[in-house]
Amino acid sequence: MEGTTARALGVHRVLEPAGALPQAAQRLDADPAIGPDEVRIAVERVNLDAASFRQLSESCAGDGAAVRSTVLEIVRTRGKMQNPVTGSGGMLLGTVDAVGPASPLGLAVGDRVATLVSLTLTPLRITDDLRRWDGRSEQVPAEGTAILFARSIAAVLPGDLPDAVSLAVLDVCGAPAATARVTERSGARSVTVLGAAGKSGCLSLAAARAVGARRLTGLVRDETEAAALTAAGLADRVVVADATDPLAVAAAVGEPADLTVVCVDAPRAEHGAILATAQGGTVVFFSMATSFAQAALGAEGMAADVTMLVGNGYTPGHAALALDLYRRNAGVRALIDPRVAE
Amino acid sequence: MEGTTARALGVHRVLEPAGALPQAAQRLDADPAIGPDEVRIAVERVNLDAASFRQLSESCAGDGAAVRSTVLEIVRTRGKMQNPVTGSGGMLLGTVDAVGPASPLGLAVGDRVATLVSLTLTPLRITDDLRRWDGRSEQVPAEGTAILFARSIAAVLPGDLPDAVSLAVLDVCGAPAATARVTERSGARSVTVLGAAGKSGCLSLAAARAVGARRLTGLVRDETEAAALTAAGLADRVVVADATDPLAVAAAVGEPADLTVVCVDAPRAEHGAILATAQGGTVVFFSMATSFAQAALGAEGMAADVTMLVGNGYTPGHAALALDLYRRNAGVRALIDPRVAE
Repeated sequence: MEGTTARALGVHRVLEPAGALPQAAQRLDADPAIGPDEVRIAVERVNLDAASFRQLSESCAGDGAAVRSTVLEIVRTRGKMQNPVTGSGGMLLGTVDAVGPASPLGLAVGDRVATLVSLTLTPLRITDDLRRWDGRSEQVPAEGTAILFARSIAAVLPGDLPDAVSLAVLDVCGAPAATARVTERSGARSVTVLGAAGKSGCLSLAAARAVGARRLTGLVRDETEAAALTAAGLADRVVVADATDPLAVAAAVGEPADLTVVCVDAPRAEHGAILATAQGGTVVFFSMATSFAQAALGAEGMAADVTMLVGNGYTPGHAALALDLYRRNAGVRALIDPRVAE
Repeated sequence: MEGTTARALGVHRVLEPAGALPQAAQRLDADPAIGPDEVRIAVERVNLDAASFRQLSESCAGDGAAVRSTVLEIVRTRGKMQNPVTGSGGMLLGTVDAVGPASPLGLAVGDRVATLVSLTLTPLRITDDLRRWDGRSEQVPAEGTAILFARSIAAVLPGDLPDAVSLAVLDVCGAPAATARVTERSGARSVTVLGAAGKSGCLSLAAARAVGARRLTGLVRDETEAAALTAAGLADRVVVADATDPLAVAAAVGEPADLTVVCVDAPRAEHGAILATAQGGTVVFFSMATSFAQAALGAEGMAADVTMLVGNGYTPGHAALALDLYRRNAGVRALIDPRVAE
């Protein structure tokens, strides 16, 4: 991490409280004038995090105009789109329109990009009052500016895929990259993915296969998902169980795997994942609903000698890998495309 | 994990709700009659988890008699000592007084043992009304019986150390074992421990040294701890910073380490740990105050290519390793002994 300074992390944009990192800050300076190491993006679309959008809709009783004014007020007062209740943000899409001479990100004016760091730490200014948005969708057409710091990540959108597909894939691109890396480093032969029919799940199966895993099991919640995953051909075996029921997971998986990847976006999947993993094996948790304490105490309580990883959304090369897996696997496309069309 | 069955995990002792694992259960059957694969312990002492004891004391306004009757009521109604508010338990000490013929634990009648699985999943019956306990200490002299399942862990107490020392060391024995393993597997040369003057912190430093780490940094919260850790000689370098202030941690540590071990029992130590770790390095979180979301989003937001591990309290050989580190390191003894005497 040589060369990292507080400035590279954007601390100079923090207005309150002083000294905080941007993600933890209450308020950022979203001034569109950039510093020498910054990049400015002309915003086209903001994708709200699903949990954030749900909370906003519920608190506004489904009134789209109220949701819109709430979002505008958050961005105006905080200088970023971070839902104060859920703490979550989302990502955005736009075109690079200014690059400081010292920016290390390798972006050029005119590049169409998606930000891969959270909106919770991205200085954002909205200039069109979100008038093209009805407040009823996570996808928010928007005009304005966003700032990237020296230590940020943005992916250039590929010309061969629709934006909506690229965003859907990039949104979860940390999971396949980390799955591939852990599979390689641990030498895992057998891999089980919990929540295998979802976006991160199917990409993780494809990633494990691509680096040589041989016995792939996909666990899904019902027969509809099982039929879709079976048809996609990404797993050697598809099993159905409630991922939050540890004994049901263990029974469905049968022989424990060297590596278990948790892509179930629900609480209480930790113990099933641990039980479904061989002694000496590894569990990677990608679900943000994962409880640290449940994982730690569960493994100890079951005398499970498993290595448990906090899924890191950042692995070098993650965006390109995920897009490539989408392009190369008809099965991945078959599972992801219907979600994009929704 | 071959041969693991629901029974080995103690599911047959779960009264409510059916099918749950013992830790998640509301109520266990604490019947002292053992099955063929179980072990019964004659209880001598129960150590309440610090968070649990604090909650009990506060809710009873410091009235020891009320704390005692609350604990008795919990054990009577739940068949285990799991604080319903904190969800936590503790550990216990006693003598093996019955071993089923099919128990795989290797224990013999008469062994004095400490349980290394949580009280939250240990069937417990109290028979002396805790009359020797004043309700004012985490250490509870007690008579009664506890049950170990086939897949449990208990450490035989060594004859050469006082019980209180063994318990203090065994309470945190997962940390040094995992630190040693991660240091070896990752080939880490430089290791930083946050919260280095505490029990798990000083043992982790000693463990890293024992397996060949060379550049050891101990981060502590104040000059008193710094003096104690410096005198103990366990670290090559002792630095002082608030572990919950990311930039302060990064500044104090300076050059990032290959491995950072978090033993700070406070929330919000995640981002400092990530910043203090080299790209490609590893962070192990042992603090139960760790937030999964803070770790995952923090690493992504800072584009930190770090492997983050959930500290697993169980690693094979962990008890013997920790006791051995205590015996062999005067510095470890100097830091732990005063805590035992308290």
